[in-house]
Amino acid sequence: MSIKEKIMRGVQRIGLLALPAFVILSSVALADEGVTPDANKIAIDTVWTLVAAFLVFFMQAGFAMVETGFTRAKNAGNIMMKNLMDFCVGSLAFFFIGYGIMFGIDKLGLFGTSKFWGSFADPTTGEGLWQFAYWMFQAVFAATAATIVSGAMAERTKFSSYLLYSAFITALIYPVVGHWIWGGGWLAAKGMVDFAGSTVVHSVGGWAALAGAIVLGPRIGKYNKDGSSNVIGGHNIPLAALGVFILWFGWFGFNPGSTTSGTNLSIAVIAVTTNLAAAAGAVSAMVTIWLQYGKPDTSMALNGALAGLVAITAGCANVSPMSAILIGAIAGVVVVLSVQFIDKVLRINDPVGAVSVHGVCGGLGTLLVGLFAEKAYGGVDGFFFGGGLNLFWTQLTGVASVFVWAFGGAMALFLIIHKTVGLRVSEEEEVKGLDITEHGMESYSGFQIFTTEN
Amino acid sequence: MSIKEKIMRGVQRIGLLALPAFVILSSVALADEGVTPDANKIAIDTVWTLVAAFLVFFMQAGFAMVETGFTRAKNAGNIMMKNLMDFCVGSLAFFFIGYGIMFGIDKLGLFGTSKFWGSFADPTTGEGLWQFAYWMFQAVFAATAATIVSGAMAERTKFSSYLLYSAFITALIYPVVGHWIWGGGWLAAKGMVDFAGSTVVHSVGGWAALAGAIVLGPRIGKYNKDGSSNVIGGHNIPLAALGVFILWFGWFGFNPGSTTSGTNLSIAVIAVTTNLAAAAGAVSAMVTIWLQYGKPDTSMALNGALAGLVAITAGCANVSPMSAILIGAIAGVVVVLSVQFIDKVLRINDPVGAVSVHGVCGGLGTLLVGLFAEKAYGGVDGFFFGGGLNLFWTQLTGVASVFVWAFGGAMALFLIIHKTVGLRVSEEEEVKGLDITEHGMESYSGFQIFTTEN
Amino acid sequence: MSIKEKIMRGVQRIGLLALPAFVILSSVALADEGVTPDANKIAIDTVWTLVAAFLVFFMQAGFAMVETGFTRAKNAGNIMMKNLMDFCVGSLAFFFIGYGIMFGIDKLGLFGTSKFWGSFADPTTGEGLWQFAYWMFQAVFAATAATIVSGAMAERTKFSSYLLYSAFITALIYPVVGHWIWGGGWLAAKGMVDFAGSTVVHSVGGWAALAGAIVLGPRIGKYNKDGSSNVIGGHNIPLAALGVFILWFGWFGFNPGSTTSGTNLSIAVIAVTTNLAAAAGAVSAMVTIWLQYGKPDTSMALNGALAGLVAITAGCANVSPMSAILIGAIAGVVVVLSVQFIDKVLRINDPVGAVSVHGVCGGLGTLLVGLFAEKAYGGVDGFFFGGGLNLFWTQLTGVASVFVWAFGGAMALFLIIHKTVGLRVSEEEEVKGLDITEHGMESYSGFQIFTTEN
Repeated sequence: MSIKEKIMRGVQRIGLLALPAFVILSSVALADEGVTPDANKIAIDTVWTLVAAFLVFFMQAGFAMVETGFTRAKNAGNIMMKNLMDFCVGSLAFFFIGYGIMFGIDKLGLFGTSKFWGSFADPTTGEGLWQFAYWMFQAVFAATAATIVSGAMAERTKFSSYLLYSAFITALIYPVVGHWIWGGGWLAAKGMVDFAGSTVVHSVGGWAALAGAIVLGPRIGKYNKDGSSNVIGGHNIPLAALGVFILWFGWFGFNPGSTTSGTNLSIAVIAVTTNLAAAAGAVSAMVTIWLQYGKPDTSMALNGALAGLVAITAGCANVSPMSAILIGAIAGVVVVLSVQFIDKVLRINDPVGAVSVHGVCGGLGTLLVGLFAEKAYGGVDGFFFGGGLNLFWTQLTGVASVFVWAFGGAMALFLIIHKTVGLRVSEEEEVKGLDITEHGMESYSGFQIFTTEN
Repeated sequence: MSIKEKIMRGVQRIGLLALPAFVILSSVALADEGVTPDANKIAIDTVWTLVAAFLVFFMQAGFAMVETGFTRAKNAGNIMMKNLMDFCVGSLAFFFIGYGIMFGIDKLGLFGTSKFWGSFADPTTGEGLWQFAYWMFQAVFAATAATIVSGAMAERTKFSSYLLYSAFITALIYPVVGHWIWGGGWLAAKGMVDFAGSTVVHSVGGWAALAGAIVLGPRIGKYNKDGSSNVIGGHNIPLAALGVFILWFGWFGFNPGSTTSGTNLSIAVIAVTTNLAAAAGAVSAMVTIWLQYGKPDTSMALNGALAGLVAITAGCANVSPMSAILIGAIAGVVVVLSVQFIDKVLRINDPVGAVSVHGVCGGLGTLLVGLFAEKAYGGVDGFFFGGGLNLFWTQLTGVASVFVWAFGGAMALFLIIHKTVGLRVSEEEEVKGLDITEHGMESYSGFQIFTTEN
Repeated sequence: MSIKEKIMRGVQRIGLLALPAFVILSSVALADEGVTPDANKIAIDTVWTLVAAFLVFFMQAGFAMVETGFTRAKNAGNIMMKNLMDFCVGSLAFFFIGYGIMFGIDKLGLFGTSKFWGSFADPTTGEGLWQFAYWMFQAVFAATAATIVSGAMAERTKFSSYLLYSAFITALIYPVVGHWIWGGGWLAAKGMVDFAGSTVVHSVGGWAALAGAIVLGPRIGKYNKDGSSNVIGGHNIPLAALGVFILWFGWFGFNPGSTTSGTNLSIAVIAVTTNLAAAAGAVSAMVTIWLQYGKPDTSMALNGALAGLVAITAGCANVSPMSAILIGAIAGVVVVLSVQFIDKVLRINDPVGAVSVHGVCGGLGTLLVGLFAEKAYGGVDGFFFGGGLNLFWTQLTGVASVFVWAFGGAMALFLIIHKTVGLRVSEEEEVKGLDITEHGMESYSGFQIFTTEN
């Protein structure tokens, strides 16, 4: 019996003690065999990966709060429902189809071809048990990509169509990109660095959001006849801020958790780079808007923190804390300019800034790895640290290819939905609010609310 | 000195380094002795159990948000107070009395008889330190059972009486059931499977809630003279949704944490089954209400997620992911029908659906283990996997016995309170709202609220 | 090669596998070498410390919710912005300056003199990777001290001045105290016990808050001409309660995490003492106010839980669960009396009770260690357990010295700001609300709100 077999047998024995656990473990159970450094290592990795997955799951609450906080009271229940359901539908779609496309046996570097229909793991082996933890971590990532879309399409999308495209994104659009970069596909082979998913997760969500917002068109009352843009105020800024805190908290699972190993001590560096980039992003976005308009806008500062988080996600394990501060600060400026450009120049109505935060800063952060990467952190040098421009070009190739696939694929999907079942609610429904018209309920019974305003 | 003694001495030495920890540990401290695979295993188990306990604690916030979101603004502060206080009173009652009844030396398979008054652990031994972690995990479970009750009794219960019965549930009603199934009592001896407490925790809370709602009677304005039922809208759906996300997040501590061991790798399977059942529950509840009324009600979808979570709790370590999806989907249908049955046929007024979610789906999930259990997961086969009906009958015995004890005990308790200090506030207090009348404060100062409506 | 060198090489090898982690770790990676009990121990400690740091980070959301819930709707966005920004500015200030003052090479027992400008760690060694985790944990602590201040100064402080003093507190005032007690300074040498920071973190925040509230003066409309005090109701009690639950949840990182070691099994005791003190604090505060006014005020009960948490923070690793209950109960009474004393006798306007909760109960809890400490828990006996009064005098010295430094330093800082750029907004701005005047936005668009009331 090989060492690995022995370990796995040990793990298996421990793993299957589940049944009457409370009774057995009301006292510390020390197995005579099976308690080895290797078994402990696997346990540490599993515990870490699961805890990180739980934190990433909690980001769903963060997205829900941010989106509802930045939009109107009459649609709050609809937004809750969409955020709940994209996770639910997404979990199931990823279980049955998406995971296989992402991590199944590779076909031409483009997609996976096995592990469909939940057939990814054997619960009777230690390796199989680990695969469950790995699936859990990947599933919450897939759902994150899906949920990003809802913000840009808020307040005017048909709920049934929303369910449809949530399933497609988690079953197909996201997993293909995941396969390319994390599943052994062609971008992985090129050495692209996207440690925790600035591109894989965030830009996919952001580019799909862009396609959706274009196909939908702006909310009623958003643009005037002369082309100028109106501000449609969010109805609950404390909830939006709570959402950002929850997202930041969850990001400590998203980025450090992406080692999927607690014995990989770079988790500590990743936590630090993640935190500093977020802090710098919030500060620089605040300063930018302050210089522009004379007042530090709360919404922009909140989006600045998210921009820093999205941007550092690709390089969180590959750059120094000082570089993380710079990456975050750049993202904080870019997100402000991008929100304004999309709103005022492109006239695409993205109510919460999802395209700018996740799409633009996701792409940006991935490119910046090509400049700021340092061998001492992640084993590869970027341009600023003597590594030449090779990495940068690889990163650019990845960012561009993913844009083409995710934006193009989502555009096709939304156009098909638009032409068939319809993507947008009627004008009357939009004015009344989706809570009443789509779900037959109110979100704030008893409160005096002005639903006639835009 | 035996191996076990050696390990415990090692653990003890590490355990007592607490005092000047910051100074010592500002550098990685490597003890020359005491760092053994066994000591590491205990540390992994302790860390896992504590982190899980923290997540379960956080469910208190989830319950508070769900309950307040689904009820009226005029009672929001009262609901916060009750959710805070059932945890506080419950923690103390469980420390002094409940834990001993649950885990003390067994008497006739019915209750424990030692470990009262906090005497459960010796801090100077490794085993004793572990007992503290175990107590912590159990305490947050006990408080969960108590807090479930408040939802069904919301908006009309006297606060002082609420404190009284919270103490009784955590000191007596819950721990007796806990002893039967997890403390080495008669149902444990029969081989009943309730891994994380569909019956022990949720159904106990749900059946006590049922008794409370019956004794209290419906809220003023809930039923018309012709017996038809009015909808009393919740005042803050985003908070209710946040509560569900928090509960789901906390359930990752509740279910996988119930191994009380991070080296038991079935934690990974449990996380997956838990998540999939919740997702399926939300989807199937949404589809059910959609088919019935033509609109996907947000509240029902939220309750569907909770129903899936409650139902999978018994079998989370014993069924496959595919079975978990089925269990969740069944619970999602049942919770909708149960809410309607209790509201319209039984005419019992449960403002948040606590009886259906925790009682009905808790019992249901426990029974379904008898059908869906698979040896490959938890060591025992249910009916659908060739195990015959033995397990199912055991499960049924457990579910029924716990109903008799929890519903009967709570009914007796509430009737005694009703006849002595009184369980319900006056009509005038109920109309004005409990915030003002019970606590002398308002929850939403400055907001225009219609407090005259029901 | 020494054993330590071997281990560190092993750790280093594991630590630097970061780059293509998803690919490598999609299967369980077992290194042939490097998987040792010592490497596993370091991993457990790192994972624990990071998870605890994440929980402490999340306390920022708790502080934000508590502060906004207890104040008025017209300032909600401003409070969000301040809570976000004190963390962001604080993280950066602590990275560049504060950490060096706290943990740099000691100068005269007073402050550190190295590790500035992020130069605290080398990512290419195992020891260095650990230092990143340690920094992360310390950074979230520093930001906690800063954020405490904002509550007492809410609804009337200039935002730009707020940024300024946040930076000073995290760069200078807090780290000096941290050095004295946790960085090898003069109070550490005396044997002062402040395990997780009742004094280091909470009282520093509380005393700075006191100085700020004095320099600012009360909110308009708070005091009548006859000196009597008006209640200015909080606008969102459910959010305040959510904040308290989040803080309690985060405290499980704050206190048990302060071992910065998951292999130190006293984490279990600390979790229990922390929880019981909070529960007792909430109950005793509720009882106190109930006896005084005939009604159990929700806000006071919430503050009682926080008071219990703050008070147990110093001694959480040094006292028994029973003593923890007593400490919490004492704090619950004291916080009620202190809030009333500061409001009605001193006439200092602290909108959320931050001075009483963090300053008074922080000092109180530190002193009580001198009475309740037990050798069996933390290695030293207090007065009630036969240890004489030595420890008490040391604790008193520490509490008093920190008061002088923190209150004096903050008073000087606020006076300088007051005399130069100004600390308080204009009367007109205060009446209109800081959301509109400082940030150019509203927090509750669409809701009917009475902004004219106080």
